[in-house]
Amino acid sequence: MIRLSVLYPVTEGATFDHDYYREKHVPLAVRTWGLDGAEIDKGVDGPYVAAVHFKFASPEALQAAMGAEGTADVLADVAAYTSIAPVLQTSEVVD
Amino acid sequence: MIRLSVLYPVTEGATFDHDYYREKHVPLAVRTWGLDGAEIDKGVDGPYVAAVHFKFASPEALQAAMGAEGTADVLADVAAYTSIAPVLQTSEVVD
Repeated sequence: MIRLSVLYPVTEGATFDHDYYREKHVPLAVRTWGLDGAEIDKGVDGPYVAAVHFKFASPEALQAAMGAEGTADVLADVAAYTSIAPVLQTSEVVD
Repeated sequence: MIRLSVLYPVTEGATFDHDYYREKHVPLAVRTWGLDGAEIDKGVDGPYVAAVHFKFASPEALQAAMGAEGTADVLADVAAYTSIAPVLQTSEVVD
């Protein structure tokens, strides 16, 4: 299993619309990539104001999602909730 | 639900013993804090070489774990698998 974590660094002067993120953006990504769901974080303490964790069955499934037709729309939608440039982390979930 | 993510930045010249982390360290933390489990990440691409995600029922439960008797032993054990100083992120898991 592969985890894609998208992490939004706390950034001076930037805002983050947590409601839009939960209600619109992450569901759009989940639909686009045909996932069962995702886990959303609202930062309490630490370097990130928000994050989401998606799970893919394999590196190939992640790669296919990144190249999928709707992915450009998912990325274009980021501007609707924040100006923060996210940090991407891909990891193997250890059993 | 509160997530505590412990993230180990890729660090020039530092090593990380993933086997020890999975087999010894994270189980010690889980036992010490009375958790059901944890999710371990082995970095594939991005700024972190490894990570773990613990879930706590509440901010108070996290605070109690940090102050628990065995927590000093958990922290002292970090030296057994890496010299990397981890980044701590506390978040509210959004429903």
